Amino acid sequence: MSTVGNSTNIFWHECPVGKLERQNLLNQRGCVVWITGLSGSGKSTLACSLGRELHSRGKLSYVLDGDNLRHGLNKNLGFSPEDRTENIRRVGEVAKLFADAGLICIASLISPYRKDRDACRAMLPDGNFIEVFMNMPLEVCEGRDPKGLYKLARAGKIKGFTGIDDPYEPPLNCEIEIQQTDGVCPAPNEMAGQVASYLGEKGFLQEQ
Amino acid sequence: MSTVGNSTNIFWHECPVGKLERQNLLNQRGCVVWITGLSGSGKSTLACSLGRELHSRGKLSYVLDGDNLRHGLNKNLGFSPEDRTENIRRVGEVAKLFADAGLICIASLISPYRKDRDACRAMLPDGNFIEVFMNMPLEVCEGRDPKGLYKLARAGKIKGFTGIDDPYEPPLNCEIEIQQTDGVCPAPNEMAGQVASYLGEKGFLQEQ
Repeated sequence: MSTVGNSTNIFWHECPVGKLERQNLLNQRGCVVWITGLSGSGKSTLACSLGRELHSRGKLSYVLDGDNLRHGLNKNLGFSPEDRTENIRRVGEVAKLFADAGLICIASLISPYRKDRDACRAMLPDGNFIEVFMNMPLEVCEGRDPKGLYKLARAGKIKGFTGIDDPYEPPLNCEIEIQQTDGVCPAPNEMAGQVASYLGEKGFLQEQ
Repeated sequence: MSTVGNSTNIFWHECPVGKLERQNLLNQRGCVVWITGLSGSGKSTLACSLGRELHSRGKLSYVLDGDNLRHGLNKNLGFSPEDRTENIRRVGEVAKLFADAGLICIASLISPYRKDRDACRAMLPDGNFIEVFMNMPLEVCEGRDPKGLYKLARAGKIKGFTGIDDPYEPPLNCEIEIQQTDGVCPAPNEMAGQVASYLGEKGFLQEQ
C-alpha cells in the first residue's frame, strides 16, 4: 500500500476513529454543560465543583471559562455587542469540538443574550447542549461581588455591565435551574450533584 | 458551608482538578503534534493514521483539521495574510486547550509561515509542541493534487497558493521530519509509527 498517486485519496477522508470510538474509550458521552448567569451567581464555583465530582467518578471533563479564554483564544475581542457575540460563538465552537472529542465540556460564561446561547445550542446534536441557569437574585450576586465589578459598575466606571446597565435574558427552556431554597443558596457540591444526576439520568456518564 | 457572602471567594479560584489529574485519569500526557507541509503532502493521512494508532494503544487523541475548522471556529476568516495568521493563532490556542485537557492533540494545517508556527509553539510548555514536517517534494504533492487545487493555482484561478505563488517556509528545528526514501513515500502506518515512537520515547503515552 502506497501513498503515492491517486490511491492516496482514499485516506484523506477515512478517519475511522470518531466520536463513538472515543466515547467507548472514555466510557462516557461527550456533551456541553453551558452555565449561564450573572456575574457572582456561582458559575465558576459550579464549574469547578462539577469537574471535581465528575473526576471522582472517573469521568473526563474540561472547563471553558469565559474570563480565562479572554486571555487566550479571545484576547483580540473587546466588549462591544459584536465582540461579545463573537466571544460566545467561539466558545460554542470550541465546546462543540470538546464534546466531539468525547469530553463533558463545562462552559462557564455570563452569556447574557438568549440568541447567542441558542446559537451555541444549535451547533450541537439534540440533547447534547445542557443549559444550566444560575438563577440567583441580583442582590445576592451584587452582595457577593467577588471581583468588585458591581461596585465599579454602580459607580459608572464600567459601562454595559450585565444586570446593571445591560440586560440579562434568562433562558426560556433551560435543562437545569439552580436557585435558592428559602433564601439559602445550595452548596457547591449540592449544585454539582444536581447537574451530575442529570448527566447520569441522560446516559452521559456511560458509553451507551 | 455556604456560598453566600465572602466565603464564596475561596471557591472561585480553587479548581483542584487540573492537567495532572486529567493525565492520571487518561494514563497519558497532553501535548500538541503539529503537522505542517504543502497541500497534498499527506498531513491529513498522517493525522488519521496517528489517531488510529494511538486509539489502538488506548490513548485519547483529537485531530484539529485546518479545513474542517474553517467551517466552524474560523468560518469568519478568509485568506488574507492577517486572516491566515489569525486562523493559525486560533488553532494554536485551541490545541493548547486540548493539551491542557490531557489529550494528544493532532493539528493538521499547511501553516506555511515559520513565525505563525513558532507563535503556537510558544503557547505550550517546553517540549509539548511536537512539530512534524511533511517534507515532500512539490512535484509529488502536485502530482497527487487530491483536491485539484494545484491545477486551479497553475491556471491562475487561485491566488496566493502555497508552493505556487506563495512561499512555504520549512521548519528549522522540527522534532520529526517525514520524507521519501529512495523516491518512495512512507505508508500511512509507517509515518504514524514514527510519530508514535517519538511520543513513547518522550513519555507522552503514560502518565509520568
